[in-house]
Amino acid sequence: MKLGRRLAVEGAGTAWLVFAGCAAMALNASPPSQGFNVLEVAAAFGLALTVANYAAARAASAHFNPAVTIGYAVSGRFPVRDTGPYLAAQTIGAILGAALLVRVASGRPGFSVAVSDLGSNGYDEHSPSEYALAAVFLLELAVSFVFVLFHLLMSSTVARRKTAALAIGACLAAIYLIAIPVSNGGANPARSTGPALFAGEWALDQLWLFWAAPLFGGAAAGAAYRLVGRRSRIVPTPSRDGV
Amino acid sequence: MKLGRRLAVEGAGTAWLVFAGCAAMALNASPPSQGFNVLEVAAAFGLALTVANYAAARAASAHFNPAVTIGYAVSGRFPVRDTGPYLAAQTIGAILGAALLVRVASGRPGFSVAVSDLGSNGYDEHSPSEYALAAVFLLELAVSFVFVLFHLLMSSTVARRKTAALAIGACLAAIYLIAIPVSNGGANPARSTGPALFAGEWALDQLWLFWAAPLFGGAAAGAAYRLVGRRSRIVPTPSRDGV
Amino acid sequence: MKLGRRLAVEGAGTAWLVFAGCAAMALNASPPSQGFNVLEVAAAFGLALTVANYAAARAASAHFNPAVTIGYAVSGRFPVRDTGPYLAAQTIGAILGAALLVRVASGRPGFSVAVSDLGSNGYDEHSPSEYALAAVFLLELAVSFVFVLFHLLMSSTVARRKTAALAIGACLAAIYLIAIPVSNGGANPARSTGPALFAGEWALDQLWLFWAAPLFGGAAAGAAYRLVGRRSRIVPTPSRDGV
Amino acid sequence: MKLGRRLAVEGAGTAWLVFAGCAAMALNASPPSQGFNVLEVAAAFGLALTVANYAAARAASAHFNPAVTIGYAVSGRFPVRDTGPYLAAQTIGAILGAALLVRVASGRPGFSVAVSDLGSNGYDEHSPSEYALAAVFLLELAVSFVFVLFHLLMSSTVARRKTAALAIGACLAAIYLIAIPVSNGGANPARSTGPALFAGEWALDQLWLFWAAPLFGGAAAGAAYRLVGRRSRIVPTPSRDGV
Repeated sequence: MKLGRRLAVEGAGTAWLVFAGCAAMALNASPPSQGFNVLEVAAAFGLALTVANYAAARAASAHFNPAVTIGYAVSGRFPVRDTGPYLAAQTIGAILGAALLVRVASGRPGFSVAVSDLGSNGYDEHSPSEYALAAVFLLELAVSFVFVLFHLLMSSTVARRKTAALAIGACLAAIYLIAIPVSNGGANPARSTGPALFAGEWALDQLWLFWAAPLFGGAAAGAAYRLVGRRSRIVPTPSRDGV
Repeated sequence: MKLGRRLAVEGAGTAWLVFAGCAAMALNASPPSQGFNVLEVAAAFGLALTVANYAAARAASAHFNPAVTIGYAVSGRFPVRDTGPYLAAQTIGAILGAALLVRVASGRPGFSVAVSDLGSNGYDEHSPSEYALAAVFLLELAVSFVFVLFHLLMSSTVARRKTAALAIGACLAAIYLIAIPVSNGGANPARSTGPALFAGEWALDQLWLFWAAPLFGGAAAGAAYRLVGRRSRIVPTPSRDGV
Repeated sequence: MKLGRRLAVEGAGTAWLVFAGCAAMALNASPPSQGFNVLEVAAAFGLALTVANYAAARAASAHFNPAVTIGYAVSGRFPVRDTGPYLAAQTIGAILGAALLVRVASGRPGFSVAVSDLGSNGYDEHSPSEYALAAVFLLELAVSFVFVLFHLLMSSTVARRKTAALAIGACLAAIYLIAIPVSNGGANPARSTGPALFAGEWALDQLWLFWAAPLFGGAAAGAAYRLVGRRSRIVPTPSRDGV
Repeated sequence: MKLGRRLAVEGAGTAWLVFAGCAAMALNASPPSQGFNVLEVAAAFGLALTVANYAAARAASAHFNPAVTIGYAVSGRFPVRDTGPYLAAQTIGAILGAALLVRVASGRPGFSVAVSDLGSNGYDEHSPSEYALAAVFLLELAVSFVFVLFHLLMSSTVARRKTAALAIGACLAAIYLIAIPVSNGGANPARSTGPALFAGEWALDQLWLFWAAPLFGGAAAGAAYRLVGRRSRIVPTPSRDGV
């Protein structure tokens, strides 16, 4: 598949993921605070990713997440020259998804971006349970490492790819069950960027962490995969489009 | 399969979907208001659709939803002459499902259709979180587009059809997690019509939106599928009954 | 497989189903009333049945439910002479499962069977939302019909049996999302009998309904399957043990 | 696969399972007491195990649980000489997972291990619903028996192994729905040991029960599998690494 089409898939899928997941956080007027219904929001992100994976039908080259793209590039299974375009497409998609969410959310009487935060990620007083910077960084690093390593493993053979769409969505739900009370659930810099652009100054000020920790975690997962894969002779099957 | 039998399947499946989903909203006396337990209701609709899809065993021609039928017709994968009968069967099924629900719900002391609304869809003061007309229209349009496009994609190859029953149910659950606080969860004009006939005048007055937005969204998905499918050479496999 | 072994499987599976599902209702001290957390209890019953189905590995002859056995017998796919032993094994298993649950529950300070009811089914003042007899009967009839018909359909071909364990558990979860607020979730006379023997006189007085409605519903599903199957030439594959 | 690598997989998987499951219990500041949101925590443990199973890709020799290892050894499908190293790797992994959790949790203002208990298991006043020792022992024994027997059954043929990763995670979620209000959810001595080392003296004092009951239950499951398997001629397929 040509790069242009793959970038369109990345953008559309990331827009859907950000819209669906953050909508489950931001559209319900009842919950009194961020991170209130952890299970519901984790289910929304996990189901949305499973749907996007099924729609794309190619687990190996549908990332919807800059940390995943970096992990594949470091692992040697993704061309480094495509990394920039992928990250740009994911980020633009996330912004479009968040823009659509703002448009819908504004139809609620008394809605204020300042109060709802649109599902933005944060630390210190912007963490749902007020976790400090170091704890949020450590958690985002750890769950991004797990998620990206799992993504690499699930796309490494033809047999595994058959269940990858479901399994990767389940993994995202699992790490969000952990991460929502701490950081509102990140592990995806594009997902963090979309709502932060609309939620206000504090979210942009804290955005650096939600790029740095997931990218470090994803790169570490790519390196670990490369190291372990070499010793255990995992032979990654090239995807249909040569990625 | 003959048209008569397919229409019976459409009617029975839509009756079950409306009964099960709206029952999860209307039968529990405890929740103080509509849209209270979003995850539970989204699970009920998603599981009910997965069950109906498995029972029908033909994801490509089991729609249970006028927006899906319109989308398939626009995409060129469904005969236009069958569209009317399908929509009629789905709507009649939905009404029968809602009638059964009213019969059960009336067995609760103090039950009043006016209070419970039977899971009807609405905007302004009839939206669970009081979303205005434009926001509800936009959301219904967006989630119907996603759902119908996903339905078309999941039935486009033999391999995808094997997981279509589960994946399409998961997609419905995902869009209901988003839509329940906004519109009580529509994206299916038949599902909206069933309870509206029993819930009272306001629901009928607002019903036009829950036909217009999903049908626009479904038609747009059909057009997008046709456009993209042609360029990427998706070859839709004809279903067993030539649809 | 010999009848004796199949009866042991029926008994063990039903014991597990009753223990697991009713435990999710009865062991938690926090919920103030029956049917409080509908999603959690529906998940417990659905997951427990999926686990039992996988363990038995033969969806066609693992019933764990007298209504299912009656439905298979009426459909012509189960020997009538084995019906009595199956119902006995299921009921004995359910009683053993409930007895184990009583033993565990009694370890909680202040536990009283009279207050918790152990997840027994009931109508009128013993329905979680106080549904009257007629409404409970109608609902139990309807959801038993759906469940047994779905069970028959999912075991009718080799291809469908591959997903039957999961799909049948999902169907049970769906009907329990509907039924828990109404009747505390029945559709299985053995499941109703187990806790009723321990919960006290009222539960035994009302137990007739939770045999009558599910058996009528199951028999109707068997008849419908036979009627429709003949016209559409569904060829049920005989299971490994000739059932 | 060499023993050293298998031990690394056991340690890493158990660390992830303990970290993810106990994090869902300990990181959210909102729930007022242990065992508050049973469904969420059961989902976290079940999803985490499914993810670990998929990642390991060999259900038959990925245990992540001393009770499972003992069950396989008693069943005759696991070399007795490897039992000690497996238990050690699982316990060390669990301690590392709990240590990471303590590190993250300490970033919350006002966090105190004494209050949160980090998801430790307990009886009497340390049981979420204050269940007495005998009830907790009986429950842990019963659910460990079910879980280990199910694990043995799901890995007994090639066909069953294809769904084992998902089914075994579903089974863990089912038994945790039962066990969380009673014991905070054990059935895995390594999972119990990790947080107990950090939660304080009472957790270590009560830890013996969460080794004894699961190991008895697991050994009984192994014996039952051996007995039944011999009579029904279940032929366990040897795993790729000769286990």
